[in-house]
Amino acid sequence: MNFASDNAWGAHPAVLAALAAANDGAMMGYGADPVTARAEAAIREALEAPEAVVRFVSTGTAANALVCAQLSPPHGRIYCHEDAHIETSECGAPEFFSHGAKLVTLPGADGKLAPETLRPALRVGAGAGLNGGLSALVSITNATEWGTVYAPAEVAALAAAAHEAGVPLHMDGARFGNAVASAGCSAAEMTWRAGVDALCFGGTKNGAMAAEAVVFFDPAHAEGFDYRRKQAGHVFSKQRFLAAQMLALVEGGLWLRLAAEANAKAQALAEAVTAGGGRLLAPVQSNAVFAAIPAETHARARAAGAIYHLWPDKSAEGLDPAPVRMVCAWDTPAADVARLAAILAGH
Amino acid sequence: MNFASDNAWGAHPAVLAALAAANDGAMMGYGADPVTARAEAAIREALEAPEAVVRFVSTGTAANALVCAQLSPPHGRIYCHEDAHIETSECGAPEFFSHGAKLVTLPGADGKLAPETLRPALRVGAGAGLNGGLSALVSITNATEWGTVYAPAEVAALAAAAHEAGVPLHMDGARFGNAVASAGCSAAEMTWRAGVDALCFGGTKNGAMAAEAVVFFDPAHAEGFDYRRKQAGHVFSKQRFLAAQMLALVEGGLWLRLAAEANAKAQALAEAVTAGGGRLLAPVQSNAVFAAIPAETHARARAAGAIYHLWPDKSAEGLDPAPVRMVCAWDTPAADVARLAAILAGH
Amino acid sequence: MNFASDNAWGAHPAVLAALAAANDGAMMGYGADPVTARAEAAIREALEAPEAVVRFVSTGTAANALVCAQLSPPHGRIYCHEDAHIETSECGAPEFFSHGAKLVTLPGADGKLAPETLRPALRVGAGAGLNGGLSALVSITNATEWGTVYAPAEVAALAAAAHEAGVPLHMDGARFGNAVASAGCSAAEMTWRAGVDALCFGGTKNGAMAAEAVVFFDPAHAEGFDYRRKQAGHVFSKQRFLAAQMLALVEGGLWLRLAAEANAKAQALAEAVTAGGGRLLAPVQSNAVFAAIPAETHARARAAGAIYHLWPDKSAEGLDPAPVRMVCAWDTPAADVARLAAILAGH
Amino acid sequence: MNFASDNAWGAHPAVLAALAAANDGAMMGYGADPVTARAEAAIREALEAPEAVVRFVSTGTAANALVCAQLSPPHGRIYCHEDAHIETSECGAPEFFSHGAKLVTLPGADGKLAPETLRPALRVGAGAGLNGGLSALVSITNATEWGTVYAPAEVAALAAAAHEAGVPLHMDGARFGNAVASAGCSAAEMTWRAGVDALCFGGTKNGAMAAEAVVFFDPAHAEGFDYRRKQAGHVFSKQRFLAAQMLALVEGGLWLRLAAEANAKAQALAEAVTAGGGRLLAPVQSNAVFAAIPAETHARARAAGAIYHLWPDKSAEGLDPAPVRMVCAWDTPAADVARLAAILAGH
Repeated sequence: MNFASDNAWGAHPAVLAALAAANDGAMMGYGADPVTARAEAAIREALEAPEAVVRFVSTGTAANALVCAQLSPPHGRIYCHEDAHIETSECGAPEFFSHGAKLVTLPGADGKLAPETLRPALRVGAGAGLNGGLSALVSITNATEWGTVYAPAEVAALAAAAHEAGVPLHMDGARFGNAVASAGCSAAEMTWRAGVDALCFGGTKNGAMAAEAVVFFDPAHAEGFDYRRKQAGHVFSKQRFLAAQMLALVEGGLWLRLAAEANAKAQALAEAVTAGGGRLLAPVQSNAVFAAIPAETHARARAAGAIYHLWPDKSAEGLDPAPVRMVCAWDTPAADVARLAAILAGH
Repeated sequence: MNFASDNAWGAHPAVLAALAAANDGAMMGYGADPVTARAEAAIREALEAPEAVVRFVSTGTAANALVCAQLSPPHGRIYCHEDAHIETSECGAPEFFSHGAKLVTLPGADGKLAPETLRPALRVGAGAGLNGGLSALVSITNATEWGTVYAPAEVAALAAAAHEAGVPLHMDGARFGNAVASAGCSAAEMTWRAGVDALCFGGTKNGAMAAEAVVFFDPAHAEGFDYRRKQAGHVFSKQRFLAAQMLALVEGGLWLRLAAEANAKAQALAEAVTAGGGRLLAPVQSNAVFAAIPAETHARARAAGAIYHLWPDKSAEGLDPAPVRMVCAWDTPAADVARLAAILAGH
Repeated sequence: MNFASDNAWGAHPAVLAALAAANDGAMMGYGADPVTARAEAAIREALEAPEAVVRFVSTGTAANALVCAQLSPPHGRIYCHEDAHIETSECGAPEFFSHGAKLVTLPGADGKLAPETLRPALRVGAGAGLNGGLSALVSITNATEWGTVYAPAEVAALAAAAHEAGVPLHMDGARFGNAVASAGCSAAEMTWRAGVDALCFGGTKNGAMAAEAVVFFDPAHAEGFDYRRKQAGHVFSKQRFLAAQMLALVEGGLWLRLAAEANAKAQALAEAVTAGGGRLLAPVQSNAVFAAIPAETHARARAAGAIYHLWPDKSAEGLDPAPVRMVCAWDTPAADVARLAAILAGH
Repeated sequence: MNFASDNAWGAHPAVLAALAAANDGAMMGYGADPVTARAEAAIREALEAPEAVVRFVSTGTAANALVCAQLSPPHGRIYCHEDAHIETSECGAPEFFSHGAKLVTLPGADGKLAPETLRPALRVGAGAGLNGGLSALVSITNATEWGTVYAPAEVAALAAAAHEAGVPLHMDGARFGNAVASAGCSAAEMTWRAGVDALCFGGTKNGAMAAEAVVFFDPAHAEGFDYRRKQAGHVFSKQRFLAAQMLALVEGGLWLRLAAEANAKAQALAEAVTAGGGRLLAPVQSNAVFAAIPAETHARARAAGAIYHLWPDKSAEGLDPAPVRMVCAWDTPAADVARLAAILAGH
């Protein structure tokens, strides 16, 4: 009963099969192979973005931080939510890769930036002068770190604010599939049609072993990116094995089916929380449940072997109700979900 | 009537005289000259710290950022007030020099960090793991960015919290003289006796042209620092001209007399603010006045030619009362102070 | 007939099987899984180094550059051969990760550093002062970029020179298996017993998809390394899939058998070169052949579909004899080797 | 008798007078002062470059390294002479500021790059791909580190090679005055008319205390430079005191007169070397003499109290003839020059 994270779970059989299929004799290295070409094309197609530049890396931190360095100078200001993964969970990777950019963090309900806070912050940035640095990038996460999902219209509103200030918009899509599946829109509607300039399209949390795609919708934004990826040690020599994972997920739409499964499991937990007298800390719109549950329920779940995190950290141990984060993956066993749901619902 | 900043004013005649005196034929470069030796010794003596390592640089940003890089790895967490100069006014220099350290900013009344907020933040940091980075440094500014002054006991309390967490304490002393003169303590009581590990001892805002001393009270903290200073382009070949400035200020205690003059001028303005129906936004303990003054008073001051900043920025124009920052230097003319005070007092 | 590089070839079936086996439900992420623990232990055992710290990354560039950053400050001097991979083929990754370290390159026959050139260079470095930076690291590659192999005694002589100068020795072992198999020694004799302090133990060129181990023989050298790896985006969330690859290669000694196969294939080509009137440009001691072959032979090889690089680059096209680099992998088909050998031998 | 370096000597009285004159009450900080405006204009005029962007910093290392970072990405290749100051004497500052750029060093007689070596190196760079990085900048020093001077035509030939390869040309002019005075051309002929894109115009070695100007002839090259300078801690708050130094040197042509004096003194020493049976190691075209002098002459010079460096370092002690570097400044006393010349001439 592991609900600690979606990355605690495994790889989809189709991914393993794709790796085996890609293991087909000699191919040129460093991305000059047919698997990479097919995978890049598949992602462009999934995004309806025939001009986009697509590149693969193996971790979400690498994807995000390389985009930050690509789009921000060392003296740049990168605007993000105060709970953004790039701020809280990447050990300073954006600062390291960009050589000093400053993350300007903003509050926002349900883990979301809002135009009402972003616009004034960009105005402050525009007047920050040499002291404060140069506004360079706005970054949002979708699905967010609180399991909520920006609808395309919300993305568009933030993109408008960013573009008015002359800076591009980045979407950290470590759980991009969960967001798109939840919103019921197309991948294009969620991204470039709404004004997203750069997308990190996550595979790892959605059935890959370790694979993420970095997408620049405007090729001009990608100039020199291959050098950055190389200099950071993120170009695989046998890149076919990176590309094959994304190819398996994207071709045929597997990524959306897996994400929808994970979302549905979280929904089941969310309903159980409410039924059991708990309170959702944020709307459950993707594959994570943030909830305050009765301490007694928490104790029973733990006793039953359920693994999940107290939120935001262990210091919450002992509180009643207990604030918790429970994350579902496409392959979280249905039986586990049912069992935890029963406990949460008070049965 | 310039109250925009203490760095809008000039250099003390003694500093100019010291430069002329140092211009005495050939000396070895890069700090291997007798002026540098004397200046380092003078600062060690002023601090009663015979073992301290003292080095000179030309700007406060360089001093602070080099200390940050010296004491924090790229993956370090540096704790500071949310209004700290290193956060708001150095264009990301600490992140740049350290290669990615993260400034963890904390709120605090009157521009001061308090142990009650620092301790929990250090606890969060201790549990932040690889995601959040490694707690590396606590940095305070004295006098603060709000013109207030930490008393030695307050410094000691913060040092205790830092040291319990295993991290050193840095004091940004761009206005160190103003702080010491205000507190009426010795420079040693304000620093190493209270637990400060590294001090940026500012000269520029206190009568120098451009000179700051970096002081490590424990020589072990200074290992390799000379290389960092050199690699950052902050080693002067004719270093005697940097050292001579600090020597002129420190030898004979000129620095404290100048700081006391500046403080007294600010005190006069503060009293006028109160007399004139304005409100001090923070206690005036050094050479800066933060106040909300009647819009009409503000208009009259402007009309009279007074230069100062609205606070925190121009967006405050038009407010009533008007939030303003007025800074005095040792050489702000007494007549200017009297004239502005009269306006502030409503005469 | 692909002899372009060993990374043009695939992954060993045992590696694929290990990935499938590791895909076994939920495990904790970021290395806190049993596969990682087993793989780290297997490498410590293969190296007879029970105290060593072992960490996994996905590329050789990441492995090398992270070691450089770990062992050199930004102002460090890293001594290496002028043809070292870290100098010629990593796009400045060591400088990027270390934040400015300088690679001091030295000539040397057959791609090898020699104590006779290293010692004077370290002496120059010791006197380089602030201008030249601080000697920080010596780095060698084994097997070298010219396909030669340092014997343990040669490694020991370089380690002695480095240690006399107070700096550690790094071995870039992208082809570590090829070196050990060639030298006929133990992995321990090739490394820590000869004085190596840090090893990059390559898997990718020897049957893995993308997996390298970084090994610090003295745990003190590894302090903070996990943060560096994380900040660089090189910590996999599902790390079991990285570790499983190395585990498959190391457990049971597969890595040495595969390397020996590749070496033997190169030996066959080398003999053919000589038989066919070509000249070896360096002794063939691992899995790469550097040779000057008759232009006519080169033309026939190309016509037969053989893929390999002119050396050092395409500008050599048209020379007679033609300087070429031919690399064998464990899975280069025996038929391809025989066919190319026949051409090289002039049959 | 100090001939160790031109930075062992002092500041010109006009510089001191200019500092005193600039110490005139309040001015706005950070370059928004009239002295800075006048100094920038004076340099534009001296260079006949009305569109050029001029900025001041306090050290030559800062000037050079900031230009490198401005014109090269982290993955850039910067081509320079193997004895270039940026390679040998800046502790890795270009790598540090640029975040990883690689200095590609080339040999060349008399400390000069030649088109015949630069062009092939740029060709190699153009084919270096991701492994080798992106050609970004060519950097030359004038006067060179060997005391020689590129004539405008030589600069133009190198600029042509650089521009053909699509990269700009930087001139490290720490001794720019010595070069221009020696060549007898205009500052414009030596720079932008010959194709120089960025110039570091040195003041420190030519009568300033610590002042250098960075000049970008094409304003497009300067975009964002002010942020870089600020983030590196190289923006003075009281910038008038930096600008005043350059103003004093440039207005009225003092810089060229001082440089010519220093050059003439070196010429006197050079003639004495030859007369006394020594051999010049490079043509003496500026203010430094590199010579092999009889050991006995060396001993007599030392005994007489002459200070200068053995070349390239102390390891040359004891050689006969003794390789030495002797540098003259504008203020090296004529008597010292005469006395050393007499010894060198064997009198």
